[in-house]
Amino acid sequence: MKTYINPAKNSWSKITQRPAKESSALGTTVKSVFDEVKAEGDKALTRFTEKFDGVTLSNLKVSNQELEEAIPLVSEELKAAIVLAKNNIETFHASQRIEKKVISTANGVKCWQETKPIEKVGLYIPGGSAPLFSTILMLGVPAKIAGATKIVLCTPPSKEGTINPAILYAAQLVGVTEIYKLGGIQAVAAMTYGTESVPSVYKIFGPGNQYVTAAKQFALTQGLAIDMPAGPSELMVVADKDADPGFVVSDLLSQAEHGADSQVILVTESQKLIDDVQLELDKQLGQLPRKEIALEAIKNSSAILIESIVDQNEMINEYAPEHLILNVLNEDVYLSEIVNAGSVFIGPLTPESAGDYASGTNHTLPTNGYARMYSGVNLDAFTKKITYQKISEEGIKSIGPAIELMAAAEGLDAHKNAVTLRLKSLK
Amino acid sequence: MKTYINPAKNSWSKITQRPAKESSALGTTVKSVFDEVKAEGDKALTRFTEKFDGVTLSNLKVSNQELEEAIPLVSEELKAAIVLAKNNIETFHASQRIEKKVISTANGVKCWQETKPIEKVGLYIPGGSAPLFSTILMLGVPAKIAGATKIVLCTPPSKEGTINPAILYAAQLVGVTEIYKLGGIQAVAAMTYGTESVPSVYKIFGPGNQYVTAAKQFALTQGLAIDMPAGPSELMVVADKDADPGFVVSDLLSQAEHGADSQVILVTESQKLIDDVQLELDKQLGQLPRKEIALEAIKNSSAILIESIVDQNEMINEYAPEHLILNVLNEDVYLSEIVNAGSVFIGPLTPESAGDYASGTNHTLPTNGYARMYSGVNLDAFTKKITYQKISEEGIKSIGPAIELMAAAEGLDAHKNAVTLRLKSLK
Repeated sequence: MKTYINPAKNSWSKITQRPAKESSALGTTVKSVFDEVKAEGDKALTRFTEKFDGVTLSNLKVSNQELEEAIPLVSEELKAAIVLAKNNIETFHASQRIEKKVISTANGVKCWQETKPIEKVGLYIPGGSAPLFSTILMLGVPAKIAGATKIVLCTPPSKEGTINPAILYAAQLVGVTEIYKLGGIQAVAAMTYGTESVPSVYKIFGPGNQYVTAAKQFALTQGLAIDMPAGPSELMVVADKDADPGFVVSDLLSQAEHGADSQVILVTESQKLIDDVQLELDKQLGQLPRKEIALEAIKNSSAILIESIVDQNEMINEYAPEHLILNVLNEDVYLSEIVNAGSVFIGPLTPESAGDYASGTNHTLPTNGYARMYSGVNLDAFTKKITYQKISEEGIKSIGPAIELMAAAEGLDAHKNAVTLRLKSLK
Repeated sequence: MKTYINPAKNSWSKITQRPAKESSALGTTVKSVFDEVKAEGDKALTRFTEKFDGVTLSNLKVSNQELEEAIPLVSEELKAAIVLAKNNIETFHASQRIEKKVISTANGVKCWQETKPIEKVGLYIPGGSAPLFSTILMLGVPAKIAGATKIVLCTPPSKEGTINPAILYAAQLVGVTEIYKLGGIQAVAAMTYGTESVPSVYKIFGPGNQYVTAAKQFALTQGLAIDMPAGPSELMVVADKDADPGFVVSDLLSQAEHGADSQVILVTESQKLIDDVQLELDKQLGQLPRKEIALEAIKNSSAILIESIVDQNEMINEYAPEHLILNVLNEDVYLSEIVNAGSVFIGPLTPESAGDYASGTNHTLPTNGYARMYSGVNLDAFTKKITYQKISEEGIKSIGPAIELMAAAEGLDAHKNAVTLRLKSLK
């Protein structure tokens, strides 16, 4: 972990530069998989699953029997933990509902917005070493609250053609309507075009490797929406001199273990904390199963001594971290100034892993500085808003002449005429 | 205008097919303009403005003097109309603010969201035949309410190097912070990378021709956000047997005059209304200055007789119109069922042009079926939400064990450890 002491502001963006993304030359691969899925449907899906997942499936869809059989395979303790997390996520996301407010913008002119579900959504859940059932909670719960009628989940099968039971348990718990054994580009292509087995959806959510990310970008060009642009995960910890170095290091490592391209940054007023963190880092790293990954990520990472809180806040807003831990006692001087961040974890007893699993907030968050203009996934992400207006006789008399003038000035006479005819009819 | 009587449902998507978009082979042009702007800054901007707008500018930025001189050039009547529209748009968009709600998802676990501005935004306003000052109101007003600190406006200059006074008046009125005489791809490139004169922004809004659209798509790949994918404008009118054919036609034409690729669709229970509309169409078309454009658009358009309201609603939701006029007396049987639409205009006295200018709702809306998953521009579009959580001793004791179990089950031991260390410290 590199250390910087009171670095000049014009060096900040260099110091906190995110690891360069591999410029993906995946375009051709992605397009050809999409084309084959579009043309051949299930046949292509089965072929790609053989090729990439090493298994020949007779059925892409997870059967009711498989769903039932999964339940007893998950320990009661883990089930209880998943239910606890689900309840908290549900409470928080349900609180994000917005009441309809009818506004009279002028006499006789009523306007309002109503929130409607995105009816068909697709969730992509990666396979591989760890079964990310927590992401099913983070995506499935708000989809259900929003009112989606079709919640499709795709996740790659094992070489035995199975899906991890915790995935199947969580998917049933949140109300996923159908699950397919599909991974990678072909999964995203299937949800984009639809096939004999797999329905098309309107918006695709979820994390994934570079293939999935490139496939989601391609889906965007095919008329779908996606949750947000993807990038490696990142964490900024701002800690004061009283922060426990053990807590700080455990937080830095919980981010670093995600991937070799993760980035963690410590900002503190205290040189002593930086020294203690460096020592503690070696200690905690040694005990980690995912040590090699975390070590790589730590290479992309910095400890930065910045004394003034004003400057610390400037650094936070400039970096726009996906995750921000404020391991400080006087949080208010930060909270009033922060504009750019994904999710903020306040105080010494609020680790990032709380939000990753069970506090109730969402863990699908904007990386790569996108917190400047994107929200994390929330209830909004599964809805859209329709605007309505209803104008009375009094209303059109009141705003009609202004519309006529403006339409004429913009050279749009038919726009003007739509008002003129109505005004005439009222005379 | 083609007429279909009770068409079979499996023919609907064909009947209402949107005009094919020219598959734009603009990628190379766009990339080279972006590359030159990135490398050469203002020099490239000046060169492209000479080439595409036919004018050599010494200053890209509109001066204070130009701003002042514009004001007396706009008639008092038009100013008053613009102010009226601005006030209504302001009232409606300000009502979209959301109060912060702190939620206890579990004992000792507090979560909330806060809305923050996208600090730097760019507005693109096309030049050409009509000065679209109304779009400045639609984008500038919510940007200001959201709290943007930088609101950059680019619009192409005339051959004399001037900007329409109504544009300059509206921009000042809403609080645009700076205006540049820049059009097309180079304007979008300037706001993407920043140059000596033009600041970079985080999100770009606004309509434009195929070059601007392609440039906004490219900006997306350069790490910016954009308002929404663009497509030709469209209107669906649902009218009952009592609807005034003159009103219906005036609405269809107010959409059709936008562009030859616009689409308008009439859905009604009444054969008589269809017949009357066809007659009235010829009459009103004859009087339009933009007749040729409207006539082309009408060729893409249909009148569809559908008797049952259930089926009419199904048609609305399948088409997902950008604009939907409900020229009916019993609106409630529609409103309760509509899920996919951009903006809805209710009743015989609510023409689309009311929303285009002055009712208070936004006129930047999802086209091309994107109303299935995108909202129109609203206050949300100029903001993002940060989530926060704060956990007490009681809180981490309550949810900590569940986090430990879930992290372990996902194979993420450092995530688990961040909780374990905290729980240990509390013993």
